[in-house]
Amino acid sequence: MNISDYMQTLGQQARQAARLLARASTSDKNVALLEIATQIRSAASSLKEENAKDLDTGKAKGLDAAMLDRLTLTDARIEQMAEGLEQIAQLPDPVGEISNMTYRPSGIQLGQMRVPLGVVGIIYESRPNVTVDAAALCLKSGNATILRGGSEAIHSNQAIAKCIEAGLIKAGLPANAVQVVETTDRSAVDELVRMTDYVDVIVPRGGKGLIERVSREARVPVIKHLDGICHVYIDAEADLLMAEEIAFNAKCHRYGVCNAMETLLVDIAIAAEFLPKIAVRYASEQVELRGCERTREILPQAIAVTEVDWDTEYLAPILSIRVVNGLDEALDHIDRHSSAHTETIVTENYSKARRFLREVDSSSVMVNASTRFADGFEYGLGAEIGISTDKIHARGPVGLLGLTSQKWIVLGSGQIRN
Amino acid sequence: MNISDYMQTLGQQARQAARLLARASTSDKNVALLEIATQIRSAASSLKEENAKDLDTGKAKGLDAAMLDRLTLTDARIEQMAEGLEQIAQLPDPVGEISNMTYRPSGIQLGQMRVPLGVVGIIYESRPNVTVDAAALCLKSGNATILRGGSEAIHSNQAIAKCIEAGLIKAGLPANAVQVVETTDRSAVDELVRMTDYVDVIVPRGGKGLIERVSREARVPVIKHLDGICHVYIDAEADLLMAEEIAFNAKCHRYGVCNAMETLLVDIAIAAEFLPKIAVRYASEQVELRGCERTREILPQAIAVTEVDWDTEYLAPILSIRVVNGLDEALDHIDRHSSAHTETIVTENYSKARRFLREVDSSSVMVNASTRFADGFEYGLGAEIGISTDKIHARGPVGLLGLTSQKWIVLGSGQIRN
Repeated sequence: MNISDYMQTLGQQARQAARLLARASTSDKNVALLEIATQIRSAASSLKEENAKDLDTGKAKGLDAAMLDRLTLTDARIEQMAEGLEQIAQLPDPVGEISNMTYRPSGIQLGQMRVPLGVVGIIYESRPNVTVDAAALCLKSGNATILRGGSEAIHSNQAIAKCIEAGLIKAGLPANAVQVVETTDRSAVDELVRMTDYVDVIVPRGGKGLIERVSREARVPVIKHLDGICHVYIDAEADLLMAEEIAFNAKCHRYGVCNAMETLLVDIAIAAEFLPKIAVRYASEQVELRGCERTREILPQAIAVTEVDWDTEYLAPILSIRVVNGLDEALDHIDRHSSAHTETIVTENYSKARRFLREVDSSSVMVNASTRFADGFEYGLGAEIGISTDKIHARGPVGLLGLTSQKWIVLGSGQIRN
Repeated sequence: MNISDYMQTLGQQARQAARLLARASTSDKNVALLEIATQIRSAASSLKEENAKDLDTGKAKGLDAAMLDRLTLTDARIEQMAEGLEQIAQLPDPVGEISNMTYRPSGIQLGQMRVPLGVVGIIYESRPNVTVDAAALCLKSGNATILRGGSEAIHSNQAIAKCIEAGLIKAGLPANAVQVVETTDRSAVDELVRMTDYVDVIVPRGGKGLIERVSREARVPVIKHLDGICHVYIDAEADLLMAEEIAFNAKCHRYGVCNAMETLLVDIAIAAEFLPKIAVRYASEQVELRGCERTREILPQAIAVTEVDWDTEYLAPILSIRVVNGLDEALDHIDRHSSAHTETIVTENYSKARRFLREVDSSSVMVNASTRFADGFEYGLGAEIGISTDKIHARGPVGLLGLTSQKWIVLGSGQIRN
């Protein structure tokens, strides 16, 4: 069978499964999630065997250490996958939730019902746990899924797929509710993102190259985030001790994450007092500082920042610093360079906090808190399928609600239009 | 200037204006809407003069009577445009609305703020009033707009654009908040729907050909509706008098609208009683009936329906009728042939009403009410920019809320991640 026919078949099967899944009861979906957890735990040794094949191939291909680490399934990671399934089983089911039922002057009673999107296509790279996490979130929200993992994880993903299928069947749900693409041919991705009849939304997870390619090729709507170029602005009226803690945490808590700060903006009024203190903290973690001219007058150890730095997601112990003339210059910098992920102001000034909240056009806008809080678990979504920097449909961490939509429902007693 | 450069310039100007508009006060936006209404009323005679040029060109080109009618600006239609602006000024401003502020275990206070989408591109055909309606909805919701009307209305739209610009300037808002494309070159549309840096969403309004072309070419997200193939299902346990009124109203209240019924599904248990009665009503309005075999056994005057009929939006006094074996067959027919716009069940049975509401995957699902209620005004949205049959972002009538998104906001007191 050629790739196109194969993907069309997956699409048709997913669409059929989606119809059944949309009306599945909460309890059936939860039983399936728990059954999959059981299957995964009892398949631990075979999962590791299949994973070892991927690791061997990966080493032979010369994958770097970080990539091999992401690819590796350990007992602890297998247990984490099972626990993730149990957590998602415990989340409230959004499907069928009815809200805002009100009577209109015509006498009809109008409201909205939350419904699944239908079929979700997930395209991701090396981490095999995404197979379980994404399938579980889609299943709980009543969506069928087509999962396309990286070729380097093909054996691991197929083994996980068997566990998922067994769990679905045990719970009496359609086995095609979750389908893992079995080919590593790249044209399968092109087909997947163009099957508008069978796929309702695509979620790409991975590096910028993958996401750009998917966005470019897709005819199906995409929920994505490209970059996390997050800013912290230290206002003239900031509590400088708080500012130091937030600026340190936002950069140094973890480097390789999208909600880490990449650029620090400092009001000129407190720059000479604040920058030397925070520089000591960064020095303790060997963070490389790249500063504007005014920054370097205060911190001569900083190297000169370039225009490219302002638009770079380092994902590394590197920080750009700019001294600004107050809030307007900070807002202007953010408007030009932010990736619309997460920005924070540190200030005790009410009016400036309020302006920052209103005027910064990012998926998360914060006052006096670390950018690192922009996360599905911290926001209480339970888990996230991704963090959207798009404006349409879902912004920021996308959990179960982001995988649903609302339809209008009307209850009448024979009303007709006059 | 070539078309691409021209459109890029419009895009950059729109993006700049959107920043200012996003933070404009409700009162400034309302002043602008009322000023535009004043400008339109006082420009009535020049609007009609410019419109006459379009009508002359249209007649010379051989436009049909319906198209010429849609194109014509009368005093009454000019007054309607002004009143529409006044109504939108009275609607509540969705921008800045904060909801669901709750404390998380970390101590951060988390909620969502409603924000404009940014820049909205509207692509439409002959009716010049769309220029005002769409601009007004976008303005009220804090979005900049780029409007691309049909070439047949170019003089009318340019004249309306001058009124809008004058109103914006009088209210102190950026003149580029609303821009009407001045060229009739079709490549301007291709450019508009691909300017992902400057345009956040495209709303095409018009015939199926236009919408299909825009959807195919667009790189920017599209809010659209393709067809309105709406169904009414008369259940075995329907109140047949109510069923007759709803089936008559859904078809005959207006023919050329997307929420009119195109297919009537009738349970076989009451078909012999119900169909002759409703057929008399339809005969009184010269509605052509096209029936399945079982329909034609009861109504020999109906012509034989074909498979194509089930997927056709007539927008005319024509109706397809199918006799079905109960709810499951009705649901199956809807699943295969509905355009996911609006479907109604007429029944007194609680369980069947509940199943229909849950299982029909359309933007509006109704019990015992005419499909004609699926409309922004009837739903209390005030006005609509369109009716979406997509699942992402907005379903059904799209009013001010559909032109906004929600960002996360976090209020902290120095919280950092552990």
